[in-house]
Amino acid sequence: MRPIRQSNSYLERKGGVFFASDNWAGADARINQAILDHSGGFKSGYNSGELDREVTAQLSRVFERDVTVFFVATGTAANSLAIASVSKAGSVTFCHEDSHVVTDECGGPEFFSGSRLCPVPGKLGKMDPEALRTAIGRFPADFLHHGRPGAVSITQATEIGTVHNPDEIKAIAAMAREYDLPVHMDGARFANALVSLGVTPAEMTWKAGVDLLSFGGTKNGCWCAEALVCFDPALSREIAFHHKRAGQLFSKSRFVAAQFKGYLDDDHWLDMARHANAMTSRLAAHIDNSPHARLAFMPEANETFMILKKTRAEDLRKKGAVFYEWRPPLSHEDLISDSQEELYRLVTSFATSASEVDAFGEALA
Amino acid sequence: MRPIRQSNSYLERKGGVFFASDNWAGADARINQAILDHSGGFKSGYNSGELDREVTAQLSRVFERDVTVFFVATGTAANSLAIASVSKAGSVTFCHEDSHVVTDECGGPEFFSGSRLCPVPGKLGKMDPEALRTAIGRFPADFLHHGRPGAVSITQATEIGTVHNPDEIKAIAAMAREYDLPVHMDGARFANALVSLGVTPAEMTWKAGVDLLSFGGTKNGCWCAEALVCFDPALSREIAFHHKRAGQLFSKSRFVAAQFKGYLDDDHWLDMARHANAMTSRLAAHIDNSPHARLAFMPEANETFMILKKTRAEDLRKKGAVFYEWRPPLSHEDLISDSQEELYRLVTSFATSASEVDAFGEALA
Amino acid sequence: MRPIRQSNSYLERKGGVFFASDNWAGADARINQAILDHSGGFKSGYNSGELDREVTAQLSRVFERDVTVFFVATGTAANSLAIASVSKAGSVTFCHEDSHVVTDECGGPEFFSGSRLCPVPGKLGKMDPEALRTAIGRFPADFLHHGRPGAVSITQATEIGTVHNPDEIKAIAAMAREYDLPVHMDGARFANALVSLGVTPAEMTWKAGVDLLSFGGTKNGCWCAEALVCFDPALSREIAFHHKRAGQLFSKSRFVAAQFKGYLDDDHWLDMARHANAMTSRLAAHIDNSPHARLAFMPEANETFMILKKTRAEDLRKKGAVFYEWRPPLSHEDLISDSQEELYRLVTSFATSASEVDAFGEALA
Amino acid sequence: MRPIRQSNSYLERKGGVFFASDNWAGADARINQAILDHSGGFKSGYNSGELDREVTAQLSRVFERDVTVFFVATGTAANSLAIASVSKAGSVTFCHEDSHVVTDECGGPEFFSGSRLCPVPGKLGKMDPEALRTAIGRFPADFLHHGRPGAVSITQATEIGTVHNPDEIKAIAAMAREYDLPVHMDGARFANALVSLGVTPAEMTWKAGVDLLSFGGTKNGCWCAEALVCFDPALSREIAFHHKRAGQLFSKSRFVAAQFKGYLDDDHWLDMARHANAMTSRLAAHIDNSPHARLAFMPEANETFMILKKTRAEDLRKKGAVFYEWRPPLSHEDLISDSQEELYRLVTSFATSASEVDAFGEALA
Repeated sequence: MRPIRQSNSYLERKGGVFFASDNWAGADARINQAILDHSGGFKSGYNSGELDREVTAQLSRVFERDVTVFFVATGTAANSLAIASVSKAGSVTFCHEDSHVVTDECGGPEFFSGSRLCPVPGKLGKMDPEALRTAIGRFPADFLHHGRPGAVSITQATEIGTVHNPDEIKAIAAMAREYDLPVHMDGARFANALVSLGVTPAEMTWKAGVDLLSFGGTKNGCWCAEALVCFDPALSREIAFHHKRAGQLFSKSRFVAAQFKGYLDDDHWLDMARHANAMTSRLAAHIDNSPHARLAFMPEANETFMILKKTRAEDLRKKGAVFYEWRPPLSHEDLISDSQEELYRLVTSFATSASEVDAFGEALA
Repeated sequence: MRPIRQSNSYLERKGGVFFASDNWAGADARINQAILDHSGGFKSGYNSGELDREVTAQLSRVFERDVTVFFVATGTAANSLAIASVSKAGSVTFCHEDSHVVTDECGGPEFFSGSRLCPVPGKLGKMDPEALRTAIGRFPADFLHHGRPGAVSITQATEIGTVHNPDEIKAIAAMAREYDLPVHMDGARFANALVSLGVTPAEMTWKAGVDLLSFGGTKNGCWCAEALVCFDPALSREIAFHHKRAGQLFSKSRFVAAQFKGYLDDDHWLDMARHANAMTSRLAAHIDNSPHARLAFMPEANETFMILKKTRAEDLRKKGAVFYEWRPPLSHEDLISDSQEELYRLVTSFATSASEVDAFGEALA
Repeated sequence: MRPIRQSNSYLERKGGVFFASDNWAGADARINQAILDHSGGFKSGYNSGELDREVTAQLSRVFERDVTVFFVATGTAANSLAIASVSKAGSVTFCHEDSHVVTDECGGPEFFSGSRLCPVPGKLGKMDPEALRTAIGRFPADFLHHGRPGAVSITQATEIGTVHNPDEIKAIAAMAREYDLPVHMDGARFANALVSLGVTPAEMTWKAGVDLLSFGGTKNGCWCAEALVCFDPALSREIAFHHKRAGQLFSKSRFVAAQFKGYLDDDHWLDMARHANAMTSRLAAHIDNSPHARLAFMPEANETFMILKKTRAEDLRKKGAVFYEWRPPLSHEDLISDSQEELYRLVTSFATSASEVDAFGEALA
Repeated sequence: MRPIRQSNSYLERKGGVFFASDNWAGADARINQAILDHSGGFKSGYNSGELDREVTAQLSRVFERDVTVFFVATGTAANSLAIASVSKAGSVTFCHEDSHVVTDECGGPEFFSGSRLCPVPGKLGKMDPEALRTAIGRFPADFLHHGRPGAVSITQATEIGTVHNPDEIKAIAAMAREYDLPVHMDGARFANALVSLGVTPAEMTWKAGVDLLSFGGTKNGCWCAEALVCFDPALSREIAFHHKRAGQLFSKSRFVAAQFKGYLDDDHWLDMARHANAMTSRLAAHIDNSPHARLAFMPEANETFMILKKTRAEDLRKKGAVFYEWRPPLSHEDLISDSQEELYRLVTSFATSASEVDAFGEALA
């Protein structure tokens, strides 16, 4: 998925309402406080300190299962290391054709794994299980020339703001199991999907068949809090070496641990995600009510995709709204037929206020 | 270079004086304040925000030259991407045999570059220029079988706490230029070396022949502020793709930018480094005065290597001192002849106090 | 492109007519003789002998231009090294969606290049230039997240036995030039395409915009004679290191050189290709005349794709014909609507006799 | 190990006696005959033909155990794929500091494995088991920063023409087993070592603890007959994908199979190796008897290292002798103290005649 326009500088200078991305927001106050709270004293680094262990224990409670946790700098790193850790020579990881791993990571997963990604189609940003079967079927067992299936990667929430329900995850994971393939979930917007579904973290992951999770906190109020969470103890040791070799083992790891502590304590992460999602619902209602705009997809998390005349979009921008035009996803390439129209993405976060949303709604009406 | 003992947990729990590593300290107050100061509002990410540009301009002033800056998660990442960006098929990067890149990065530089490191000997942690010539000479031009020289990497300050003066850097760089090889400097403790020498950042880098610098702030008071600084504009575009592909392009990059701003403003970085170095001098004086201990090398930055009877080291630990025993460097393997003795590393930082150092000195005396 | 059935052993044991692949044939007598002629005496190896140089000179005459020549073990190696030598971090090579590089090389090109392949659609096995423009357009300049265009690779003859004429090659190469991308040609069946078109090797390659050629002799009567031919002197030095590092620098390289000498002398390679193509034309005529079978594509080189009822295919096999069923190409997935029918591939070579073809024709009629 | 002088062309043109390398010889008559014998008819390729299976069965008898066999283009490929197949993230393969894998393969093993080689010292080209223990000890279990031990690779015969006896192999393999590391043998001159020792292939490999063997036939009379022989069935499937991905899966694999058949039938390979070794013994006797030359090491296979005044070497060359000067191995760097002297390598093969050796001896006397 791709923003079409790149130059952000003029946008940033404007006052106004910001829907460009959830990573345009800074950090939530509790996250900052947690960093301050843990900035004193001498603590061992490289993920071996007390606070690191405390966060691992906290995530084990969140996921109702012992997990291994590797802090990383970015979602790209989490995804790449997850895929690398389950890849072998000639293997292929199946992912949705519009997924972040295949379109937005500059070949990172392929580079780290030394293997390939195979894009699978599917409506609404979700891999179609039958299309997955067809894709896997193109790599018959032991026919060396094509390579071999290696893993399945799904995105939750998806790149177009929809959410897989647990049954949908189970259906994909069941297909993966049939071919003995591990399942990775790119959870850059994990919290937004979770509160949207109202299920538990366990239900949305390992209980549905997920083995490896990229658990993102950055887009939901943290500064830099991304983790590769591993539900399969057998993989942990391998990941540890991939993680260090990749230059992703932070020395002062407690600064990530502190963020996760502030994030998870008192379910603050869920509160922030609920707020972001609520702002998106409010925004979607404005769009739905506007005679000028329409929703490309029904938003299920914190992203809205809106179709609008380009001239109207420019008007909104002049009034201070900041958002990207967006290339239609491969699986919905026919979204726009009128050349005067364009697709736009609007993202809300913990930092979005109802008044900003309503101001945008008024400008749109 | 390598600590021999790994289990830190018991150390961390003790009260006491902490010389285990400069990354055991948290963050300096001004660094924390800078993060807080920039945590509000909506800003574009991925190194494209105003604050990112401001820090680049600030570093360009610091280095008296236009530089390109890539924030990364770790020193391993900075080193690996630097080496990768100048490597080609079959090329070899020459580094000191005790350098961090070859001993402590789990093969990261080799992995990212797809090429090899060639360890070069040299006393006091510094590559001997004649040994470098010999090493390069083992790869005659166009003799494909051996591969070809690719780059030279030096460490400033070195892994044993010594510092290359500008003439020493120039001598190595001159040798590299003779073979048309770019020069990388691993500056994980750049500031400590700089204030030790009393030269300018430019004099210690590009004016002496350095093309690429791993500029570390983490060990000197930041949380996570590492950057690959590039003095060669032609390399910048290539590095950008390596950087993104490696999962090192932070989305909320302003949290690193803010740290660097707090770090560089008012020469705060130099003040912190001066403090750390002064604490090391004070510590070294205590050791030098002790009848029980002796210095393995004359400390020139913020690390001290001390030779001591093991039983005495245990006594110090019982009294609350925290430090690692250390394997003698390859280039000084004969450092210890008495099997009752051991080499120990002591590191000071912005957070070390004179009273802690003196308490240690008393315990030692 | 893919054969569906793998187990060849029963086929091999049968007498009969063999259309399974052009690599099922052994070696032509002149190729064997050339090996024998050069098997005596002591000669320097590793591509540095007189015979190696002689073959390079011969290929320079064939291509009317100074070329550099790297002998390799397989077409996969030639393709992989070609793509690797022009790839950079994050780059993407564009190829036809049914091309050998993307479907049949087990991820070799991606592994060697550390980068990705982007499949481009197009009818008759040929990349559609407009589809290429669309595909390249998905990687806007300097938008790091997606990566960047790196190269274009085409196949001549294509995987379905069609041939790009020089204008078609020029159209693709012109598009590549617009984006400053080098062009690679996978010429596993180069000779078959050449004699089909009746043009010169230069016209089919560098004069049409090709920079790198995988020049295959194995399928056309040699044992193991594949070469990466480079028209761009600036690339040669880089390729040399890729070549050696990949374990593709033969020690007794004269055994490949000898094959190429026997192949090229007296235009023997063109004679063999003409024979193979003529056998395919003869075979196609039989199919075209049969009431039971039809051609999936008009054959232009030495491969025929035939649609037939499965029961009839079994009958032919019982009579001794050996050929593979074949998965319809992605760009012609709708080739077969009747579930009783199947696609079959038939390949002729220097070793195919007219009587064998006619025997097959009779069995089909 | 390294020849100092590269330009071979003038050497090749001379008549004379050729001791430059065993790969300067062409192919033995029985090898050529075997190729001719199997050049007719249609056979399935890609290692799946009858002849391929026959050779596997033959090698299984030779090694008194079921083996898996992968034909490759070069020894570099065999070594690289062997090491790659047992490497993991951050792992390190231990090899002798003068071994071919670390000095003469342009970083191939590192590239294919994504990991590192650690050179281990040892006299007479053989890894010293205690030095191996020390080297492995530098990578303590689970200390991520350094990486982890991955495999041990030895060379038989060594790069300086000596041979490990089975007890020496067992001692190294026992050390490897202690750390749970697989053992690879680079057998580029396997046959020469075997007949030198008078043991069985099984005794020299898996019975002594070897898991993977690079089995070379090229230097001993074949054109291009190298194979990775795997004694561990669990590794075979993984190697198969590495092998194909590396562009090492020959299509007309029977041309390698045929060579191996001619090689192994009637123990012809042993006869050729015995001849080559006998010629080396004869040559060594001449050198030993000469007042002008001396042996650097006692030859145990088909290579002789001679120390001679440079002026005398030039005289020999003027009389038609062809041989390389050679850089002293790292583990015997002090071999030459007189600057007028040089080290020279002389290699014999199946094609060397006693009269040539004696002519050289006379010239030397």
